[in-house]
Amino acid sequence: MYVLNQHTSEQYLTQMHKTSAIIKEWLDANNVYLGGSPKQVQETVAAMAMDIKAQGRDIDALLADIQTKLLPGCISTASSHCLAHLHPPTLVIGQIAEMIIAATNQSMDSWNQSPAATYIETQLIAWLCQRCKFDSSEFASREFNKQTDEQTTYQSGGVFTSGGTQSNLMGLLLARNTFYAAKGVDVQRDGLIGQSRSVILCSDQAHFSIAKNAALLGLGQQSVQTVATDASGAMLIADLQHKIKEHGADNVMAIVATAGTTDLGAIDPLSAIASVCKQAKIWLHVDAAWGGALLLSKRYRDLIDGIDQADSLTLDFHKHFFLPISCGAFLLRDQRHFESIRQHSEYLNSSADDQDNIPNLVTYSLQTTRRFDALKLWLALDLLGTDAYGALIDSGLDTARKAAQLIKARPDFVLLHDPIISSVLFYFKPQGFSQDFDQNSNEDLKEATELTKLQLAQLNRQIAQDLLINNIANIATTELDEQLCLKLTILNPTTQISDIKAIIEEVASAGYARLKNYGDKLHAAI
Amino acid sequence: MYVLNQHTSEQYLTQMHKTSAIIKEWLDANNVYLGGSPKQVQETVAAMAMDIKAQGRDIDALLADIQTKLLPGCISTASSHCLAHLHPPTLVIGQIAEMIIAATNQSMDSWNQSPAATYIETQLIAWLCQRCKFDSSEFASREFNKQTDEQTTYQSGGVFTSGGTQSNLMGLLLARNTFYAAKGVDVQRDGLIGQSRSVILCSDQAHFSIAKNAALLGLGQQSVQTVATDASGAMLIADLQHKIKEHGADNVMAIVATAGTTDLGAIDPLSAIASVCKQAKIWLHVDAAWGGALLLSKRYRDLIDGIDQADSLTLDFHKHFFLPISCGAFLLRDQRHFESIRQHSEYLNSSADDQDNIPNLVTYSLQTTRRFDALKLWLALDLLGTDAYGALIDSGLDTARKAAQLIKARPDFVLLHDPIISSVLFYFKPQGFSQDFDQNSNEDLKEATELTKLQLAQLNRQIAQDLLINNIANIATTELDEQLCLKLTILNPTTQISDIKAIIEEVASAGYARLKNYGDKLHAAI
Repeated sequence: MYVLNQHTSEQYLTQMHKTSAIIKEWLDANNVYLGGSPKQVQETVAAMAMDIKAQGRDIDALLADIQTKLLPGCISTASSHCLAHLHPPTLVIGQIAEMIIAATNQSMDSWNQSPAATYIETQLIAWLCQRCKFDSSEFASREFNKQTDEQTTYQSGGVFTSGGTQSNLMGLLLARNTFYAAKGVDVQRDGLIGQSRSVILCSDQAHFSIAKNAALLGLGQQSVQTVATDASGAMLIADLQHKIKEHGADNVMAIVATAGTTDLGAIDPLSAIASVCKQAKIWLHVDAAWGGALLLSKRYRDLIDGIDQADSLTLDFHKHFFLPISCGAFLLRDQRHFESIRQHSEYLNSSADDQDNIPNLVTYSLQTTRRFDALKLWLALDLLGTDAYGALIDSGLDTARKAAQLIKARPDFVLLHDPIISSVLFYFKPQGFSQDFDQNSNEDLKEATELTKLQLAQLNRQIAQDLLINNIANIATTELDEQLCLKLTILNPTTQISDIKAIIEEVASAGYARLKNYGDKLHAAI
Repeated sequence: MYVLNQHTSEQYLTQMHKTSAIIKEWLDANNVYLGGSPKQVQETVAAMAMDIKAQGRDIDALLADIQTKLLPGCISTASSHCLAHLHPPTLVIGQIAEMIIAATNQSMDSWNQSPAATYIETQLIAWLCQRCKFDSSEFASREFNKQTDEQTTYQSGGVFTSGGTQSNLMGLLLARNTFYAAKGVDVQRDGLIGQSRSVILCSDQAHFSIAKNAALLGLGQQSVQTVATDASGAMLIADLQHKIKEHGADNVMAIVATAGTTDLGAIDPLSAIASVCKQAKIWLHVDAAWGGALLLSKRYRDLIDGIDQADSLTLDFHKHFFLPISCGAFLLRDQRHFESIRQHSEYLNSSADDQDNIPNLVTYSLQTTRRFDALKLWLALDLLGTDAYGALIDSGLDTARKAAQLIKARPDFVLLHDPIISSVLFYFKPQGFSQDFDQNSNEDLKEATELTKLQLAQLNRQIAQDLLINNIANIATTELDEQLCLKLTILNPTTQISDIKAIIEEVASAGYARLKNYGDKLHAAI
């Protein structure tokens, strides 16, 4: 039999041993990526992934395919040279938790699919709210867009989500419902058609999911109006105030502040934005998918001061908390706002259960069937303690600062900003690289050595590709002010400054090799 | 160090062995649930889950808590008596896949976070589309709500999702965008405000996520108009046609057909609905979160005939495909419809990548960071083959039919329907149970023995609770035509008719015990 139960538990044990041994071997080899070019890995996979037939095949043949074809084609986030995205190495405890999550397969939608798990998630949400100081916040719950300062007592709440994009969606959804409710409109019931327009304000560095989610919610991407940022990428309060005035405070549905923009790692001035929101009675959603990790920091916690004043909050534990995907949370300072999305189904969250005080978390969630992702965070916090966990997080910030110094010191690199959390934006720009071709006095070549912006972009993109395809490092490309650049996102606590130094050297080598190749080709063409 | 890499791989191996041994022991004990009442399990968890301190603790102490406090408080879907929800036992291969998914931690949003995984997901989507016969469908892509019969060539596509609710959301989202685009409105850009009203038609048995998602999308729950169903729970075509006429075909944004309603397991007449949609040029979304499993069935495949004519389709592999949560898919017959939700971000899906034919799946997904859930389905299909997989699926349908016969034969049970997929709705209704109290000639008691509808509801609810709390079985309660009833959802291929027989006996025993208790209390009160 194929089904996991007491009859197959021995087989389960055997397979877990075999599979973990294969993974250990993969880890021990310590590669970034062995799959080659997109075309190469596509061909490898094509040969493997279409092997679906009426008759199955032997488990060992399958595991051999995993070992020889799948794993080499995976990016290893365990590598200290994997620094492209908010895509971290994972904690061993996260792997333990995933094994338990998969084997128990609890579903968080109703209590009778996840009895203990339901209470663990609920308590962890309470702990997170406490850590954010939602309950002790000087802000009491306010009546949004109403001309009253009525203060009521409230409890904070939240739910685990599939990630930051879904948490941001929940924030905008509840803000939307609350905004129109203040105008006497039940938008959940009646929809947006026929209603007045509203705007969402966020910085021009906010995550693309804000616009994507506004479109999803029927508000349209055009409802998202961006606020200018300073050189660090943080929202300019003066421009925020200007934009509120421009659109009218009564028409602003929500302000989204970002604690950790994806490229610059910028953190909007949360306290100042919160004051603006308080005064104008506007919902404040804080997207702290990245910066939320600083809740555990000892040395950088002040960067996110003001986070306690959010009305809703996005946290993401599969980023700088080093937990396997998926693991996100949505927190709500006044959990009564969940009421607008309560949807009743007799078989999941019956009113009888409500009366009996049996919690069915589907009431608070956009997903129905849902993983017990909370276990990962709870076990990690329990095992490490907040001190050690915070130190792991801080490590990336420390390394990023050192990395920036290294890059700054090189004449053939341009550093684009001082790191805030732990991304470093820069690009390779060879100085006088025509020296390499001194022997060539050809005028055409001399001209060619002055690289245009477009050529620099192409060169840096090629460098990133070369490093990945040659199993050297995984670094990202992005754009800042329409300038293509390279990005290191340094989450990995085992990434040392020596790793960064080696990667910088490799970037330069790859760059010069590409230029040499370019020069040679030009030379050959002459 | 806590981080998974070559330095901790030995520790990883040790912990995987320890944890899988703990899980094996839990499986071997073969309990349904040992956690007791909601209050009891809440107290157990409270003692455990708040143990988050500055200093961490020993892994073995933590694993002991998992063994003694967490696992007993979990529902074991591995038990052949766990039959409450669409919450299946899992395949051993699903556990292997989860171990690989967690350890490799690929993120499906961009190619350079999941090189091989991206191609595996893409090929599996193609395989699923083929299995649904999307490509060979007689339906060519059509221009929705336009007075033209222009037929163009197209390719099908899709994406893995967190589950059925998200897949349904994608279906409605793309239908919404397409509907308004036909009226010359870019609703993603401009939103719904100021647009004309539209309706979504689905049966009165459709999943609650249709209304929930319509509300999310800004259309309002009121945009969802329900179509009457027959005794089996399947949509009545005559009423569908009536509803289209009532609202005007031009105002119908989408019709949602369900292949496997949550309670009755009913399957709407897909081919007939598709014909209506074709004629009226209305988007057809098929929610086959449950019934989609019959794509692999040998003996019940005809139940979902017509599925190939859907414009969009929800499949869910963490239901009757026995894979661990999360594992869902959204399929699109004409993948060009994805274009309306394309959102560009330079660091994930740059136009340069598009030009280089490097696929970044974030373009097709509502999630950004996303698990490599496709691996579970691919490995399961590869290992089992479609024949054996289909046989596992069919097993639940066979058992449900036998279970219904058993229940029907008992005078103290009321069977509410003939099973379609594999749910069985019934309730315990003792016949002349006053015999138990023959010795009491008291008139008051005699009256009390005639149970009202409300008392029957309460009794059956108590029975379900008793069975769970006493580790006998997990069965669900739901409502059919305002009658509370019990539900068996028989997915587990290891559940034999002898298991069902034992559960039925236990339901009756629990029922009579409750009644005896009730009678005794009444007697004592006299």
